[in-house]
Amino acid sequence: MALHEECGVFGIYDFDGGNVAPYVAYGLVALQHRGQESCGIAITRDREVASYKDLGLVADVLTQKVLDSLDGNMAIGHVRYSTASEVSRENAQPLVMHYKKGTLSLAHNGNLSNRTDLRDKLAGTGAVFQTTTDAETIAYLIAKERIYSHSVEEAICKAMLNLKGAYSLLVMSPQKLIAVRDPYGFRPLVIGKMDNAYVFASETCALDAVGADYVRDVEPGEVVMVDQNGLTSVSKTPAPKPAPCIFEYIYFSRPDSVMDGVSVLKARQIAGQLLAKQHPVEADVVIGVPDSGIDAAVGYAKGSGIPYERGFIKNGYVGRSFIKPKQSERALAVKLKINPLGDNIRGKRVVMIDDSIVRGTTSAKIVKMLRDAGAKEVHMRVASPHFLWPCYFGTDIPDRSNLASVKYSDEELCKIIGADSLGFLDINCLHELVGKQEFCKACFSGEYPYDVHKKSDSEDL
Amino acid sequence: MALHEECGVFGIYDFDGGNVAPYVAYGLVALQHRGQESCGIAITRDREVASYKDLGLVADVLTQKVLDSLDGNMAIGHVRYSTASEVSRENAQPLVMHYKKGTLSLAHNGNLSNRTDLRDKLAGTGAVFQTTTDAETIAYLIAKERIYSHSVEEAICKAMLNLKGAYSLLVMSPQKLIAVRDPYGFRPLVIGKMDNAYVFASETCALDAVGADYVRDVEPGEVVMVDQNGLTSVSKTPAPKPAPCIFEYIYFSRPDSVMDGVSVLKARQIAGQLLAKQHPVEADVVIGVPDSGIDAAVGYAKGSGIPYERGFIKNGYVGRSFIKPKQSERALAVKLKINPLGDNIRGKRVVMIDDSIVRGTTSAKIVKMLRDAGAKEVHMRVASPHFLWPCYFGTDIPDRSNLASVKYSDEELCKIIGADSLGFLDINCLHELVGKQEFCKACFSGEYPYDVHKKSDSEDL
Amino acid sequence: MALHEECGVFGIYDFDGGNVAPYVAYGLVALQHRGQESCGIAITRDREVASYKDLGLVADVLTQKVLDSLDGNMAIGHVRYSTASEVSRENAQPLVMHYKKGTLSLAHNGNLSNRTDLRDKLAGTGAVFQTTTDAETIAYLIAKERIYSHSVEEAICKAMLNLKGAYSLLVMSPQKLIAVRDPYGFRPLVIGKMDNAYVFASETCALDAVGADYVRDVEPGEVVMVDQNGLTSVSKTPAPKPAPCIFEYIYFSRPDSVMDGVSVLKARQIAGQLLAKQHPVEADVVIGVPDSGIDAAVGYAKGSGIPYERGFIKNGYVGRSFIKPKQSERALAVKLKINPLGDNIRGKRVVMIDDSIVRGTTSAKIVKMLRDAGAKEVHMRVASPHFLWPCYFGTDIPDRSNLASVKYSDEELCKIIGADSLGFLDINCLHELVGKQEFCKACFSGEYPYDVHKKSDSEDL
Amino acid sequence: MALHEECGVFGIYDFDGGNVAPYVAYGLVALQHRGQESCGIAITRDREVASYKDLGLVADVLTQKVLDSLDGNMAIGHVRYSTASEVSRENAQPLVMHYKKGTLSLAHNGNLSNRTDLRDKLAGTGAVFQTTTDAETIAYLIAKERIYSHSVEEAICKAMLNLKGAYSLLVMSPQKLIAVRDPYGFRPLVIGKMDNAYVFASETCALDAVGADYVRDVEPGEVVMVDQNGLTSVSKTPAPKPAPCIFEYIYFSRPDSVMDGVSVLKARQIAGQLLAKQHPVEADVVIGVPDSGIDAAVGYAKGSGIPYERGFIKNGYVGRSFIKPKQSERALAVKLKINPLGDNIRGKRVVMIDDSIVRGTTSAKIVKMLRDAGAKEVHMRVASPHFLWPCYFGTDIPDRSNLASVKYSDEELCKIIGADSLGFLDINCLHELVGKQEFCKACFSGEYPYDVHKKSDSEDL
Repeated sequence: MALHEECGVFGIYDFDGGNVAPYVAYGLVALQHRGQESCGIAITRDREVASYKDLGLVADVLTQKVLDSLDGNMAIGHVRYSTASEVSRENAQPLVMHYKKGTLSLAHNGNLSNRTDLRDKLAGTGAVFQTTTDAETIAYLIAKERIYSHSVEEAICKAMLNLKGAYSLLVMSPQKLIAVRDPYGFRPLVIGKMDNAYVFASETCALDAVGADYVRDVEPGEVVMVDQNGLTSVSKTPAPKPAPCIFEYIYFSRPDSVMDGVSVLKARQIAGQLLAKQHPVEADVVIGVPDSGIDAAVGYAKGSGIPYERGFIKNGYVGRSFIKPKQSERALAVKLKINPLGDNIRGKRVVMIDDSIVRGTTSAKIVKMLRDAGAKEVHMRVASPHFLWPCYFGTDIPDRSNLASVKYSDEELCKIIGADSLGFLDINCLHELVGKQEFCKACFSGEYPYDVHKKSDSEDL
Repeated sequence: MALHEECGVFGIYDFDGGNVAPYVAYGLVALQHRGQESCGIAITRDREVASYKDLGLVADVLTQKVLDSLDGNMAIGHVRYSTASEVSRENAQPLVMHYKKGTLSLAHNGNLSNRTDLRDKLAGTGAVFQTTTDAETIAYLIAKERIYSHSVEEAICKAMLNLKGAYSLLVMSPQKLIAVRDPYGFRPLVIGKMDNAYVFASETCALDAVGADYVRDVEPGEVVMVDQNGLTSVSKTPAPKPAPCIFEYIYFSRPDSVMDGVSVLKARQIAGQLLAKQHPVEADVVIGVPDSGIDAAVGYAKGSGIPYERGFIKNGYVGRSFIKPKQSERALAVKLKINPLGDNIRGKRVVMIDDSIVRGTTSAKIVKMLRDAGAKEVHMRVASPHFLWPCYFGTDIPDRSNLASVKYSDEELCKIIGADSLGFLDINCLHELVGKQEFCKACFSGEYPYDVHKKSDSEDL
Repeated sequence: MALHEECGVFGIYDFDGGNVAPYVAYGLVALQHRGQESCGIAITRDREVASYKDLGLVADVLTQKVLDSLDGNMAIGHVRYSTASEVSRENAQPLVMHYKKGTLSLAHNGNLSNRTDLRDKLAGTGAVFQTTTDAETIAYLIAKERIYSHSVEEAICKAMLNLKGAYSLLVMSPQKLIAVRDPYGFRPLVIGKMDNAYVFASETCALDAVGADYVRDVEPGEVVMVDQNGLTSVSKTPAPKPAPCIFEYIYFSRPDSVMDGVSVLKARQIAGQLLAKQHPVEADVVIGVPDSGIDAAVGYAKGSGIPYERGFIKNGYVGRSFIKPKQSERALAVKLKINPLGDNIRGKRVVMIDDSIVRGTTSAKIVKMLRDAGAKEVHMRVASPHFLWPCYFGTDIPDRSNLASVKYSDEELCKIIGADSLGFLDINCLHELVGKQEFCKACFSGEYPYDVHKKSDSEDL
Repeated sequence: MALHEECGVFGIYDFDGGNVAPYVAYGLVALQHRGQESCGIAITRDREVASYKDLGLVADVLTQKVLDSLDGNMAIGHVRYSTASEVSRENAQPLVMHYKKGTLSLAHNGNLSNRTDLRDKLAGTGAVFQTTTDAETIAYLIAKERIYSHSVEEAICKAMLNLKGAYSLLVMSPQKLIAVRDPYGFRPLVIGKMDNAYVFASETCALDAVGADYVRDVEPGEVVMVDQNGLTSVSKTPAPKPAPCIFEYIYFSRPDSVMDGVSVLKARQIAGQLLAKQHPVEADVVIGVPDSGIDAAVGYAKGSGIPYERGFIKNGYVGRSFIKPKQSERALAVKLKINPLGDNIRGKRVVMIDDSIVRGTTSAKIVKMLRDAGAKEVHMRVASPHFLWPCYFGTDIPDRSNLASVKYSDEELCKIIGADSLGFLDINCLHELVGKQEFCKACFSGEYPYDVHKKSDSEDL
């Protein structure tokens, strides 16, 4: 309920030459949960690129009128999240750049951990930046490598040697659609097929939205290209130990998505079942905080034998643009979005599952809501470990000084939140969610997949 | 998933003189499910009325900028649904009229069954109509009665003698806020209290949204007035047998609302439990079609012992304004809104609960989706009886010729939908949902609370 | 530069059945100078009426998209001016009303002097008003008379017996387009013909804009009807002494328009020539304040022998919506709109012609501008007599207490304005502008065509 | 009436620290005639830059709400024209770039003749372009030079060595506002002073609009800088023979502007007077095509002794966004914008002055309008020589194959246009308009100030 990721990407190449513009809209609306600030499309027909992007939701930006003005058989799209202070039309993606070899369009999800270094070096050669996006930095690197390369995909592979961090990237050149996933595979990226077209998307739920079948994930460190000759895996240089973000399963992704072979729904239900074992409690009902706490709650119910019930109704009409209650009405801010289902709570001992605790302030409001609705006891269970460390790979975690679990012990936090008990998922069982050991859990453990602060030689351009 | 009601209303009177404009916005956004076409507010300070209304959602119409321009301690608001052919700014409410005694603002939820007669008679005296709303008709009647009445509330009471049908009505005169519910109580209307203010709303969930406490329902045939002297029940002349709409419980209202003492959530869960008894089946999982099928599904699960699971993810970003898939992509229309959770369905015998079947076309698409997702069997259970008759009281039911249960037997319909079995809730047990015998179920039974086609004497003006 | 009229109207009936929607847009844009607040169209095809109206200029409201959605062979349109305090979407016209005999659409230019009486009487019979327009009042009267009449035109003729004041009115019934001009003919209204269509418009410049030929003026007190049988003069009951507004010639109308047989351009040039005789002065150059002072300046030049030069450049991009300079920058408010042409002014004795003086504040700013631009002397000449009395017929004249010529003698005013000399047109020669004695000059003379304050018997409904 | 220039620029630096945002809006609205496609502002307070730009007119983009959100004591602004095919938000200026030394904002008027070479070379070093503007190219060159320079102004001076063509440029660094005019001085750029602030603008009419006094022109090849120490002329390296565009006087600029010491109004009047001598004719009246033909018409009247009259009324409400008449109504397209003043034309021999003839199609329509309005004879006089050659410096002249005077002799053209006689200004007297020999008249003569096609050494980066 509190963290945001940077973006979602979608790409499509239709060998039959059909207009793919509406499919990009469908795909992006399915990825809208990954970013609601701005969105856009870049589309190619016969080497000519057109693009449209703006602040706002997909339904408000990619209107029928806009889509009617776009035509092409190859396209990429993007939805973007960003913190309020950076809200800007300039940063909307896809970026469309003109370089030596024509047009280059980019849509990026992730975060480069060496972006400052890269920008400094590029600026040192006379580069000018018009956005604050990593996509622009990456475009520069590709353009520089392209001078000495035989193809755009070769340039991309070379540019990757200088990139550190998270990037699930779609690149569209005049004739090629290229999907790139960083060697650690921090962010998801999948391949789908539909009639005579290939589709790339951040999540499988976007494949479902356009009626495409899941083919496989782009693998960590892989570059996949689609052109008139079909789909080719250009190269694959994974990190020794890939590290897909575990938090994609816990919070970011939609439960109907499957990433790297693991169902998000399953991962959440397992988290709930583990929680039930690790933090059992006598109670009458298990409820989940919508949306991401619901499946873990179902898992807790199964694990504990306590019945699951809907705890809240979420009001989907309270969007980002809705008026904010004033200071004096602050209690309403959460209440407008979710309202407890009194009949399921009144007079009961409630286990309330949320996906995570960041600052703790929202949890406190929700617990109070439950008590006001008549809950006899409220036992909070958190379907992830304690948030303790910053993320350099695309998750917008606040300063450590604002993290509840940095500031407080569980006992203190339980009191602050107003719960009767509080339990977090044991960090040592995270692998059970995804059935493997290779993933990034640095925000919980502080152990990053590589030394994010080390300036390696490879960063020199 | 298929029917729509006409409207939702919200009113507030603050004895302390605070500006109530933002509360109207909060209340209306909580009632947004009752109407998404247009919305508006009329607000009074010191007898002066200002108003603002437009096509669009509450969050898009009642923006911070608009609210900043409005001030008053008494206000009414409205959200409206209407069929596409009537989409018009003119019909947005509240209506603000100037008549002999100053300004009269009205917000109406319901449908007059004798509207044509009333309009004809008014037109016969030289009336001109600028909208097609019942609110305008009612305003005329009040204005005519006001000439010979001592107060606006007296005029309202007299006007009610000529009204037939459903009306939950808020009227704002320069100094009074008046709530009116028709003698049958077809549509809900509740009273809340919050600090030193009274609140009226179509549903209790809007009381929750502004932090108000539920006081009681406006009773069938009751006129309740708030002015500087406080709240008064002006009169109460219920029908011999009140008939609140049962479909409010089955579909229209939010499950966190309580109407006439009955929880919507409970009514739905009971419907599911009854279904489990009436139409048992061997299956592995029970799922509900979001949103209104979910609680009945939970009830079916309890009644049958078959576990409940989330069956679908609903995409809240697919609004009314989102591009419609073209003919060739029609299968996507439903898929963009709801996507099955494969893990909960694959290889399983599924019981799928929906609130009702109108045309049957959507059900067919959803069943196909489940089969595509790997369901071994799909047993559809419908948490209401067969839809067979038109509604004259505010539910937008299509022509009988389009109703699935008018055209087909259950067996035929089951085949058309593509389900393995199909069962409807027995009409004779509807009273168990609400724990009483007095309610309107005419859309299922064809037995209307009064003879809607008879032209009674009382209709003569 | 300071007064505003209420409105402009345009109507068209195409016997060939072509879609007239774009012609309404062309005609209204030609009448835009008569009102910039709101505009709209009502259009009929096969007895079905569609309409669209909104706040804003014609180009912003009647966009290609809007026009593409409208179709009909009969239509009326309206541009509206109003004071800021009444800016409201409700008052936009045409009004579209439903009454006993179907739909009635009205577009009105003018002002009823007995509107309050009429409204009170209508309210006394139970009428409700949703706008503050005279059009709504007139619609009510027509609707009432229609009950006892055989046709809408008969009802209109009867309704006219109760109307006092100015009304150039277009009425569209399901099959007829009717043009009405009040017995005094206060506001203009002309008939044009174009291919197989008839056109009505406030001014001939709108006929030119659609390529129609001028046929004749609707005469004072005349009702003209177009239906499938062609154009008919239904009735004509002029006042004993008609009184078209002289100020239409001096300020409101476009100089390329001809009204009641008199060219606006000619009338203004004559005013200038008369001024040259009445208030001669030794000077080097004559300039006019754009736009309405220019032709009088040319006339003054001809009458005096002093050469005419352009004195100012007007910036057409400074619209109503442009930011208003703050208090500290107030001198800029006029300067942004008009800027002196230094070369024509520097070192010269300047005669500056404006159409009228209302408050005098703008004149003071313009005189200062000229002095700053190097004028040696500035002699202001006003192409109309002293503004002294209110107008009850559609001209928005401020309170007498704000009129410069009520507060000051010419000598005082000359000093306040900062001019070297000041001269007004002699009221006794106004008839020379239009070549006849019958016109309304009440705002200058205080002699109204009828006793506007008398409550005549005919006002009783 | 037919050609368009690329842009207008405005800059301001207030030593007192006041917020200059509204002044930028005032200045840009005064320059709106130089570009109506898009506009924008970049503003600095304490080294922090904010910017806002969009498609649309100044009044629609820089609204009160937008201006309220901007604050700074140093700013630049831009209005842009472009052909329809390039309409794009990306190209709106000012460009705001981040480079090694912080932020760089640029607003450019003109056209680089070696832009393709420069772009190719930059691309060869790995540059990526996000716009098609010259401003972006210039920004790159400055950024590259900045690496080896001690200051931004030094970098600008070095970058100028590589630029060929027209550029009147405003550059804003975190602490400096710098104005640059190319060595030929193709486009105008002036300096003004106002209270304790310096102002730069494309034309003096923008100085008038903000109440600033004209100081002097930025000279050809000059770089002028304003920072906390005041205004400094950094360097000045004019071309051996500067060549300000003569067409600025004939058409582009506002007649109330003075450029390089020459009044636009005077230049136009002289052109008219010369025309009267070169192409005399017996006639009754001289009229000008608004707006740019009017002052030449006044000059012709003076030179010939034939009286000047207003020939047309221009409708200022017909903007770029207004619906275009359909093919069948094409004659209306011009008529909606200008309508003849019949009284001044009927039965007369008319001399009609326009600023230039490009394709000739508009002239034909206007001549026809005059004949329809009753002109006995129409003698067209053109206040510039024959348009024969392309412009590489910012004037949007169509292909030679579309230029009337390339395709036809004067006699043929006269017949095509439908005039009784036709005369162009003699190219050999152009210097009389501006009172000097140094100016660019290449579009008439084909003699360019330098060899625009030669690839000089200095272009190598």
